[in-house]
Amino acid sequence: MKCIVSYDGLNYSGWQIQPNQKSVQGAIEASLKKIHNGEDIKIFGASRTDSGVHARGQVFHFDSEVHLSGERWRLAINTYMENDIFVKSVEIVDSEFHSRFDVTKKEYRYLLSNNQFDPLRRKYVEFEYRKLDIDLMKKELEKIIGTHDFSSFTSRSEYTTYERTIYEAELIEEAGEITFRFVGSGFMRYMIRIIVGTLIEIGYGRKEDIGFIMNQKDRLYAGKCASPHGLYLEKIWYE
Amino acid sequence: MKCIVSYDGLNYSGWQIQPNQKSVQGAIEASLKKIHNGEDIKIFGASRTDSGVHARGQVFHFDSEVHLSGERWRLAINTYMENDIFVKSVEIVDSEFHSRFDVTKKEYRYLLSNNQFDPLRRKYVEFEYRKLDIDLMKKELEKIIGTHDFSSFTSRSEYTTYERTIYEAELIEEAGEITFRFVGSGFMRYMIRIIVGTLIEIGYGRKEDIGFIMNQKDRLYAGKCASPHGLYLEKIWYE
Repeated sequence: MKCIVSYDGLNYSGWQIQPNQKSVQGAIEASLKKIHNGEDIKIFGASRTDSGVHARGQVFHFDSEVHLSGERWRLAINTYMENDIFVKSVEIVDSEFHSRFDVTKKEYRYLLSNNQFDPLRRKYVEFEYRKLDIDLMKKELEKIIGTHDFSSFTSRSEYTTYERTIYEAELIEEAGEITFRFVGSGFMRYMIRIIVGTLIEIGYGRKEDIGFIMNQKDRLYAGKCASPHGLYLEKIWYE
Repeated sequence: MKCIVSYDGLNYSGWQIQPNQKSVQGAIEASLKKIHNGEDIKIFGASRTDSGVHARGQVFHFDSEVHLSGERWRLAINTYMENDIFVKSVEIVDSEFHSRFDVTKKEYRYLLSNNQFDPLRRKYVEFEYRKLDIDLMKKELEKIIGTHDFSSFTSRSEYTTYERTIYEAELIEEAGEITFRFVGSGFMRYMIRIIVGTLIEIGYGRKEDIGFIMNQKDRLYAGKCASPHGLYLEKIWYE
């Protein structure tokens, strides 16, 4: 079964199961366990979103001996979950399908407001009160498109390669409301949030050239990691 | 001082101070008390929003011996509050101004989605999964415009008159996302939520004629009270 799921990341320590923490994966597996009369069912997510990060298009798959239509699966899984996670669709797919290994592209978005703080959106949009130079940010953002070594934009040392390919990176602004869109082959941990954090600092004049920062291949040159509540896993592409 | 304030109503038992409850008024007065070195300062709100109801344009006033500019007042009040309440502007006004008695019109909005449930908006928009007849709802909504006895749309018996004047009532729909706009002289308790709840039931065919319901002057004929988290106090007008 291939499932598309949305979630509010606020109450979760992230996608992945961790001891003594509330995870999205854990909540979905708990629901599947009920449907399977106590049998453990493991799910595989396309992306390991971090604590506090939201998703509108996370994908996971699982195998089951239970025979239900896609729509029945969808209703059943949602029945046993809190309403901060919602399975949007379930598709019965070939058992060869793997939600992580078969990914071709991923899209993340980051929402940032450069307007007055809005208490009604405080958990779903990041606010920056300093006036941002949008044209400069757009120009700098373009520099990350293509295949580059993104060592400067992750604090992790768990990767065999730090090269990633960004197919699309754009900044859409309307009346002070900013959406960053990133489409890439894959993203390292904190990579988008550090890129966004760096662009914000460029926007208010504290940093300058993202190309220079990228070339240093050193986390110390980049800006702060932007907060997780502005980040959304938007879409996963497969062949 | 005349202040415009936004708040997320979720964590509050409503605008008004009540014993052992967390209220918006209480949070703002606590902040003003700190600014006044422990002196109690009473604020007067234009509208007493109920528990869970949001505001983007609530107005309150207070008097003070402290001399600050409007912008300084704004920053000072926000400093001592949690970020689910945010004072948007403070204007120094004539001491004759009264935020409640001087109101000429009030605008409320109600947000309703007739699309698939979205866990990311669950606390700020109401969801209705049954397909709604939007054209019928628009036609019925028009019937409440004007001066009418709205006894059918409140459960309270605390009013000397149940007549209210609705200047504008409209339903704006775009791709299943619905905004109800109500502009009136004043609204009784639960009035908008019962009108919206009734229109939803009309929309899926459970109720018919809102004019008939209004003419009964009896709460029993109207629909359910829609949940508070879709309701926003949008704007207060003064002369």
